[in-house]
Formats: sequence, structure tokens, C-alpha cells
Amino acid sequence: MDFNIIRCARTVLHVTDLEASRKFYVDTLGFIETESDSKNLYLRGLEEHNHHSIHLKKAEKPVVEALGYKVSSDADLDALDEFFTEKGFQTKWIKEGEQLALGRALRVQDVSGLPLEFFAKMDHVERLLQRYDLYKGARVQRIDHFNCMVEDVEKAQDFYMKDLGFACSEYTDTKEGKVWATWLHRKQTVHDQAFMNGVGPRLHHIGFWLPDPLALIHACDVLAASGYGKSIERGPGRHGLSNAFFLYLRDPDGHRLELYSGDYLTSDPDFKPIRWDIDDPMRQTFWGHAAPDSWFNEASVVLDVISGKEVPTKQPKLEQRKPEFII
Amino acid sequence: MDFNIIRCARTVLHVTDLEASRKFYVDTLGFIETESDSKNLYLRGLEEHNHHSIHLKKAEKPVVEALGYKVSSDADLDALDEFFTEKGFQTKWIKEGEQLALGRALRVQDVSGLPLEFFAKMDHVERLLQRYDLYKGARVQRIDHFNCMVEDVEKAQDFYMKDLGFACSEYTDTKEGKVWATWLHRKQTVHDQAFMNGVGPRLHHIGFWLPDPLALIHACDVLAASGYGKSIERGPGRHGLSNAFFLYLRDPDGHRLELYSGDYLTSDPDFKPIRWDIDDPMRQTFWGHAAPDSWFNEASVVLDVISGKEVPTKQPKLEQRKPEFII
Amino acid sequence: MDFNIIRCARTVLHVTDLEASRKFYVDTLGFIETESDSKNLYLRGLEEHNHHSIHLKKAEKPVVEALGYKVSSDADLDALDEFFTEKGFQTKWIKEGEQLALGRALRVQDVSGLPLEFFAKMDHVERLLQRYDLYKGARVQRIDHFNCMVEDVEKAQDFYMKDLGFACSEYTDTKEGKVWATWLHRKQTVHDQAFMNGVGPRLHHIGFWLPDPLALIHACDVLAASGYGKSIERGPGRHGLSNAFFLYLRDPDGHRLELYSGDYLTSDPDFKPIRWDIDDPMRQTFWGHAAPDSWFNEASVVLDVISGKEVPTKQPKLEQRKPEFII
Amino acid sequence: MDFNIIRCARTVLHVTDLEASRKFYVDTLGFIETESDSKNLYLRGLEEHNHHSIHLKKAEKPVVEALGYKVSSDADLDALDEFFTEKGFQTKWIKEGEQLALGRALRVQDVSGLPLEFFAKMDHVERLLQRYDLYKGARVQRIDHFNCMVEDVEKAQDFYMKDLGFACSEYTDTKEGKVWATWLHRKQTVHDQAFMNGVGPRLHHIGFWLPDPLALIHACDVLAASGYGKSIERGPGRHGLSNAFFLYLRDPDGHRLELYSGDYLTSDPDFKPIRWDIDDPMRQTFWGHAAPDSWFNEASVVLDVISGKEVPTKQPKLEQRKPEFII
Repeated sequence: MDFNIIRCARTVLHVTDLEASRKFYVDTLGFIETESDSKNLYLRGLEEHNHHSIHLKKAEKPVVEALGYKVSSDADLDALDEFFTEKGFQTKWIKEGEQLALGRALRVQDVSGLPLEFFAKMDHVERLLQRYDLYKGARVQRIDHFNCMVEDVEKAQDFYMKDLGFACSEYTDTKEGKVWATWLHRKQTVHDQAFMNGVGPRLHHIGFWLPDPLALIHACDVLAASGYGKSIERGPGRHGLSNAFFLYLRDPDGHRLELYSGDYLTSDPDFKPIRWDIDDPMRQTFWGHAAPDSWFNEASVVLDVISGKEVPTKQPKLEQRKPEFII
Repeated sequence: MDFNIIRCARTVLHVTDLEASRKFYVDTLGFIETESDSKNLYLRGLEEHNHHSIHLKKAEKPVVEALGYKVSSDADLDALDEFFTEKGFQTKWIKEGEQLALGRALRVQDVSGLPLEFFAKMDHVERLLQRYDLYKGARVQRIDHFNCMVEDVEKAQDFYMKDLGFACSEYTDTKEGKVWATWLHRKQTVHDQAFMNGVGPRLHHIGFWLPDPLALIHACDVLAASGYGKSIERGPGRHGLSNAFFLYLRDPDGHRLELYSGDYLTSDPDFKPIRWDIDDPMRQTFWGHAAPDSWFNEASVVLDVISGKEVPTKQPKLEQRKPEFII
Repeated sequence: MDFNIIRCARTVLHVTDLEASRKFYVDTLGFIETESDSKNLYLRGLEEHNHHSIHLKKAEKPVVEALGYKVSSDADLDALDEFFTEKGFQTKWIKEGEQLALGRALRVQDVSGLPLEFFAKMDHVERLLQRYDLYKGARVQRIDHFNCMVEDVEKAQDFYMKDLGFACSEYTDTKEGKVWATWLHRKQTVHDQAFMNGVGPRLHHIGFWLPDPLALIHACDVLAASGYGKSIERGPGRHGLSNAFFLYLRDPDGHRLELYSGDYLTSDPDFKPIRWDIDDPMRQTFWGHAAPDSWFNEASVVLDVISGKEVPTKQPKLEQRKPEFII
Repeated sequence: MDFNIIRCARTVLHVTDLEASRKFYVDTLGFIETESDSKNLYLRGLEEHNHHSIHLKKAEKPVVEALGYKVSSDADLDALDEFFTEKGFQTKWIKEGEQLALGRALRVQDVSGLPLEFFAKMDHVERLLQRYDLYKGARVQRIDHFNCMVEDVEKAQDFYMKDLGFACSEYTDTKEGKVWATWLHRKQTVHDQAFMNGVGPRLHHIGFWLPDPLALIHACDVLAASGYGKSIERGPGRHGLSNAFFLYLRDPDGHRLELYSGDYLTSDPDFKPIRWDIDDPMRQTFWGHAAPDSWFNEASVVLDVISGKEVPTKQPKLEQRKPEFII
């Protein structure tokens, strides 16, 4: 590989009402609003020194425009362009200056149809990690990962591991030895990118890192007190897989967020991926609770990076399992 | 009133397998085993200086023998005897020495058919509050309250408030102005005794106090790691009513425990009871989650203090509501 | 006794700069500002349904005007007046309406020279316990206790226990059997009123209750980020005595606050007071840290309820000990 | 660079009494004892899948034998050998099998005289991250970093950054622009290796990662309850530098440990090191507390990897500062 992908770094989401989004993300969850105008809202977590990790765009329908990865240097972008082009993927360049605070960016639909974006440069802003006087809501520290539903998890996993250099921390397989879900990382945490078997390509959720479990509990209380009780879709609970203490929320447009704490270090090249049986009840929820149907069935549709149109979804290759057995 | 009831103080539960109970209560949840023999297990929390707050008796069926209240002095017992006898209740004395570590005790079936016990004296033991080296599991500090299902909540409430001197902190009523559930206290916390409309008389759960919310989360993790994932019936969550951060467990015999933290002080005589509408979704679970059916339907049968036989249950006076609207 | 004192309820403090006080108490620590004008600031904690627990008055010098106790009923005030008058104390009535939100109040200098106030009625306001969206800073829940330095602890203790009906939860004595410090309560917590041997009468600190230990740690972070690093005088740490997880702060005028969590229930009349040896290093700070000199030497001067002048202080009866051995 | 250092991975410490060490590390702090014999104790944290991160050897004097780094592959060891040899350093090989559970290891005295060790292979053992039933004491998750006192911080920093490929996250400098202390990392946390100006070469402390702040507070309580109050040297507190919530302990031989939580992600190559002024009071302790003299003056002497003798220490190049201004 001639390129070095650093980490999951930002997402571009379409939302239908920026004021409703601001009330949810900024006023309630406590994301920092770096910048905004009548059509855009740029948000970041408390430890982030990059301009934003969420870009919300006012639009007609709530879809996902891009899943952005930061790469090590500008030259990596050219190497990625060459790699994708050689493989037969159609890439698209966005020039520096076309996107606020970003250097030039490369976009491409990945092997599952997900709208990837790569960039090396984003403007630096003040890191507010020690501005505890500004902490509120969920005290979100930083973006952590993307979790996507795809029709063929093994194909997606192969591509990310063999071609893009991701490592696997944990995975779920079926009795027949088929990979049903997988957790992949570039940075040294459990994941930057997870895939699970389902109607896809769709974004299931974006994960955000919290400093401790009580911040998550407080987030529930603040959400409920602010009238967002129905936004709490699942949790709090402990995932067996990844050991995360989690909470799943739906934003005002239905995009799903995961708030969580409780990761572990995945720096070692000889770390052996942890296998979970799809029928192990502790895999999904260590404490044994079932996920609601909505968590299982609903996810955000993605856009085509070239046409700008919604990417049609397909049925998954493996059998879908009941919510109890999904993560 | 010529007597002074101090607080909810102990419960006598019948269980079918003492070893299974010990593994659950002592090894996993971290209750202190004060004393035991082949037929009895006496347990207490970390701040308790009384001999026990749970007495588990080996028996054929898992039922509730007694709900024990501590009174201020021995003379209060005679006053209570006189009061109940005058009112036409049949009382029963248990002599000092007949029950391990207890002074003489008075038992009586209350107005709803619940097996009450009153005592003034229990042996003192070492308080282990600062023996942090012994802390494990849920770090249970002390017994807090009884919650019982009764057929006529208003009748029960009237008796406890007018005749026994309890105060009400919070209550739920229906659109027709009927009390559907009520939280009553003698000590200065939210409750010693709660009643809710349901098939009764039955003990719904015994509440135990935890030092902080993370102890409750750790309890979930320890239970799951110890094979008790299925014992977690509901939670963690926040009750609107009482503001408790709660977890409901079923012990190996099906008796229900509530672990919780997050009370408030109820010392003021001019504190106005907080009213909750039965249809307020935040009443039961502040964060908006529904309770499982088992939480709504299942509870522990109680014994008759005179005959020692199970007290037959009756249908509740008010309509039963769906689990979403119960606490 | 013909009166029933409920609990430590409010304090009236003189401060020199109301804006500086507001920035510290409201903006940083998160107290709720119930009401204010150019000369007064009325503050309360999140669970308090009474109008205020701190009344800050603009004045030339930072002194203590009153330590206020809530009593059960208006008749208790007359009984207290009679009791104090018979004992030879000079009492002073403040009529309903003279103090904002308060019914009539009785003031008297106690046996140590401390300016006590008793009242039965204070206006009710909205309890904000579940308005988690308003939580900030230290998340202070309610006033908990007064801690005062007096020249003769045994005399003070006798008066409060025998004449006013307080119970003792814990105390410190010297090798000669003299009481060096004592923790007394009316409500069912460790204390409403503590006394320790020292130059007195002075108010050492007012204690406030926090919901959990992380709220206290967050308070440190917020104070530091807001430029109040120097206001943190001692802690966080664990007191052996009372088991409190504590933090001591100095407000902009030097009045001392204690933030803490980690109490226990003191409802039982047969609870035996816990004795601590003055030379036990774990008594003061369970973890073994020494208190700074300022904590040992500095305290707030009090006013005479009749003359309105500062009450002269006297040297304590017992030898003063090094800071390491004080709590 | 032809080698890839992964992370700080283990330390070999000489201790004088293995039973005393076991009581402290295993029984009290809750480290997992992987293996032991009459002369050795091998310990690991709860998330560690490698055999150990601390190797305690019974010896006459408490010194540091090695600071071990894990490298990516066996070939990296040869590349490191070549690199050091070319630079004029004397290296030493330890064959596979000579050290329990380890593959072959390369040792060398670094530019400051510190005894480095590199290895690629260590036996895998069960990861106990989700065995919550085994959690106790401090719930240590994993080794995090080494902090060493050296006479010339700039020289050490240059060597680690330019020759060994470390990146700098934060540093302290003097008014004259001299680097007084520096935080360097290979893995994506704040540090693997910190250097500070002082009598050296000596190991100041080994840092261990905890899952949350309450685990640290509980560690204090457990240590105190187990008779280790005097082992708590400093904290709990918040470092301005690194944002760590910290606790410093001295083991029974005087070796210093840091327990901490509260790091941040350092994955980005364009992360700008954070500069702290040596006179900024919030640098050392965000909340403003001073460190005790012992923390400033005492540290563990290291051994020469060739001779096995103690490495003589030298005075630091820059002026030593008062404890208040050190981290």
C-alpha cells in the first residue's frame, strides 16, 4: 500500500431543519458549533483540534453524503486515486476551498456502495478539552467510528483489510463460518469502521467517544429533561462485542448516533481478532437485553458521489437474524 | 399515635436453595453474610450496623414470611399491639430469642393482607462502610424500601398515613382522581413502603441503596460475567417518580430486588407530595423505556402470620394498565 | 422538649461584591438563583423546594449574620422563645415579611455565641431535581450542615443534645477523654451541626450535598477552567470521620464551603456514636493527606443578633492540634 | 527508520520482598498474577492479552532492570541492533527462552543511560477485560507509559524523536526556550515515554491506565482500608499537562506508580505539540495543588544492561525547580 489512512474523521449528513439539529446536537448533547451559516452547521467534540467532525447540510431529505477519512499526507490522496482508478472505481476530486476548512478531497463509492471521502488537511481550531466550563450534555470528546449495513460483509471486510490496510479487532460469524459482522480499525481503538449484514449500503450509526460512563447516564437525563425521551432508541447497556458502554440515539432526522465509552487499545500487530458466535446472547448486549426492531431495521440511505442520487439498497447475502442476535 | 415506627428494616424470605442464594447475594452482589447455618442465611449491606436486613430461610416454596419494621423502643411494640388489637387485627408475638439476633417481635397482617413485623431491638454488628477492601459486586449499602402490589391502594395509603403515621412523597393518580400508586415514608427518604395497584397482596420488590450510579453499572457487568444475565429484568434506567437510578433483578427464586441510587431528602413536614399522571410517559421511566411484562405481572406471594399459609390474592380495584404506564 | 427542630436550612452571609459572588456560586458552581436585587442574592440547590438555602447580603465586611434552622411548625417558635428566655438568653423576633420569602423568625445567640435563627415557613418554589438540562458545575443538590469552631466543644455539645434534641453520630476525643470535635444531627444524615475545638465562635464551613463523586471531580475541573484554582483549598479526599468524599472551597469573600457526597443513614435511636481518636491519622483524611494551615486557622466571624456587631472570639479550651490531626 | 516500535510494554523491577509486592499489587490494586515462582512475579492488567506488563524479581535492592518496548516484528530487532551498534551503543541479546514468556530480546543503554529492552514476541494469555467478576482494587486495565528523570531532556527528546520515531504530544519549556520536560509517544495516546529534567538516569514512575475516574477514587479507599494510606504520595488530581486524572503511589520498595484516566487520541500526524510554560501553575496540577517534595526528589535507580551494576546519576543540565512547578 502506498497510502496511509489515519482514521475515521468526519461525516457529511443531509438534514431537513438546521434549527432542530442545532437544538439537538449543540444545545442538548453539547457538541461545539465551530461555524455555521443558513445552510450548514459544523460541529466538533471537546478534544477535537480539527474544524469539525460533523457537517450537517440543509436539504430536502435526510441522507448521507460522505463518510470522511483523514489520511497522513496529501500524497496519499494521489496514491488512493491511482489505486481506486486502477481497480475500476470512478473517483471524484473536490478542490481545496470548495468545502469549508478542508483541503482537497477525493471521493469514491466503495465496494459496498458507501460514499467514502479522503482528505489530508483540515483547518485547526482550539482544542477545548480543558475548557470544562463549556462542558454540557453528553460531553462528547471526539468522533470514533462508522457502522454500516452492507449486503456482503465478507466482501467489504476483504476490501478494507487487504486493499485499504485495516485490521480486524472483533467479528461475528455464523455456524457455517460466514462473517456476519466485523469491526475494523486503522487508529488504535476497536474500530473506525464496522460492517454488519443487512439491507445496504446504509449508514447504521456514527459513534462518538465519551470520557466516562456517567457522562452517558447524564446524557440520558438531559435528553429526557429536554423533551428528547423518544430520541433514546437503545441503552444504556454494555456490548459484549467491543466492551462498549453504549447509548443509541436518533437525531431529529432519524440519523443514528452511538455515544459510548469503554474501548481498549489495539496497537499490537499480533492481536488476534476476537470471534463471537452469532448465537451468543452476550455478544450483542452483555447484560442480556434485546435491541428494539427499529435498531435492527432502520438506517440512513447514502448518496452516489458522482450522480448525487440515492444509492439503491439490496437485500443482504446472509439470512437476517432477529434483533436479539444482532449487533 | 403512641408509637414511633423508624424505618423499613428487614425481610424474611423463603428460598429453595441456600447455596444458590449465597452465590447470588454474597458472591455476586456482595452482600455481607453476617451468619448462617444449614437452614438460614443472614445478610446485610455495607453500612448496616444491625445484624441483618435479609433473612433467607430454606423452604419448599419461595414466599415472603415477613416485612420487618424497626420501631423506636420496646414500649412502641406494646402500643402497636394495643392499636392493632383494638382495630380488630389478630396479632402474634414472637419472643426474644426465637429469632436470631432479634428482640421480641410483633407480627400482624395489615389492611391489605401483608405480613408486617415490628421489632425494636436487633443485635449490633460491625459496620463495614469503610472496609473498602471488602467491597464487591453492587456495593449494597443498606435496605431502603418495600414495594407491594395491593388490590386497593387508597385503602392501604389511608391506613399507613392516618393510622401508622407515614407521609407521602409522591403518588400516581388516574384521570378520575383515584390513587393508583403511592410512595410513603417514615425515614427521611422517598420511601419505606410503596403500594401499587395490582393482584395482591404480593411483594413486588425490596429496594437496596447503592452509593453511586457506577456501582449499579458495575453490578450489571459483574452479574453478566457471573452468568446472571437473565437475572437482570429491567434497567438500568431513571425513574421519573422518585428520581431513582434503578436496576431490577430477580434472585434465583424469583424474588425481585431493586438496586438504586438517586433519592432526595424528605425531612420537611410541609413537603407537598408530587403528583404524577398515570399517562405521563416520564413517570415510570424518565428516559422513556417500557418495562417488560414480567415486571408488571410477577411478584412474590406472602404468608399469613397466624396460619403460616399463603394469603390468597385478589384482583385489583382499579383497572390494570399496560406495562408502559406502571411503576 | 416542646419544639421540633427539623434541619439546618439556610445561612445569611455578608459578602462585599454580589457580582463576584454570582459568578462563583451561580455561573461556576451551578447554584440556582431564585431571586436577587442590588443588595441581595438568594440561592438554592437543585432538589430544594424552599426559596433559598443561601442568602448573600451586600455589606462592608464578609461575616455571618445567621445560621438558620427550620422547625416543624409555627408553635415551635414560641416554644423555642420560651425555652431560650427561661434559660436567660436574649431572643429577637423578625416579623413575617421583613425577610424575603420567610415567615416570622426567632434569632438568638447560642451557648457558644453563634447566631442561630429558627423559622417554620419559607415560600415554596419549583424543585429542579429533574431539570437535568439546567445542571452545571458542581450540581449542588441541597444544603447539608454547618460546621463551627467554638472554644468549648463539650459545652456546645451538651446544649445541642440535652436542650435542643440533637443526636451525635461521630465524635473525636483526646487521650484524656475530652471531646475535641462532635457531629450532631436532627435530620437523618451524619450531621446538621458540627463543632470543633478552635478560636470561636466562628463558622468554619457550610456543607452542601452532591449527587455523586464525579460531580465533585467535575466541580474541580470547572473551577480550575473558570480561573478559580486558588479557591480550591483542600481535597478532593475522603474523610474517615463521616465517610464523606469532600472538597473545600473558599468563596470570593473567604467564606468556606464543603462540597460532598458519601453520607449514611442515622435514623436509628440505638445508633452508637462512632468514636475517633484525635491521633488516628485516618480520622481526618482517610487517605492520609494533611490539611493546609488555612483550613485549620481561618473561619468566618459571626454577628451578634441583637447588636449587629461582630462577636469577639476566644481561644479554645483544649490545646490546638496540628492540621494533620484536625477535621 | 527500518524498525517500528509499537509501544511501552513491560518493565522489569527488582524488589526485596515478593510477598509484600503481591499483597500490594495483586491483593490490593487488583493486578492479575499470570505466573510466579519463589523469585519472580509476573503481573498484567485486565485488558492485557500479553503474558505480563510487570516482572518483579526478588533481589537485594529495589532497582530498575529494564524498560521494555514491543516492536512490530522480529526483523525490527535486527534493525534496531544494527542501528544502535552503528551509533556506537553496546547492545546485548537475550535469547528466546531465557526470559519467561518472551521471544528474543535486545537490550541497550539509551542516550540518557536508561536500560531499554526491545522484543517482538510475548506469549498470549486470556484477556480478562470482561471478567468483571475478577475486578478489584484499582481495576488496572493496562500499562501506559514510562516517565524518566534525565540530566538532558533535549538530548533525550532528540534521540527518541529523530532516531527512534517518537512524536511529541506536549512539552514544558523555560523562558529561555529550553525543553524542561517532554511527552513522547509511539502508540496513539499522550505518551509511551516522558522525560523530565532531574537527577538521572532514573525511572520516575510507570503509568497504568484505569477505565474511569471512580476506579481511581475507589483505589484510594481500598488502599487506605488495607493499610496503605502512606503509599498514596500525591493526588487524586488533574494534570494540566496531558489532562490525566492521576494518583501517584509508592510500592513497598518505593517504586512509583501512576494510576490514571483521561487521555486523548494522538493519531494525527499534524497534531501540534502543546507547549506549557514552566511557570504556569495549571500545568502540573490543573486544580492548583502542589506536589510533595518526595515526588520531586525521589526516583528509582536503573541498572547497566551489560555490567548489571547501578548506573551512576548526574545532576540535571537545567536548574531544578520547586515542586510546585514540576510535573
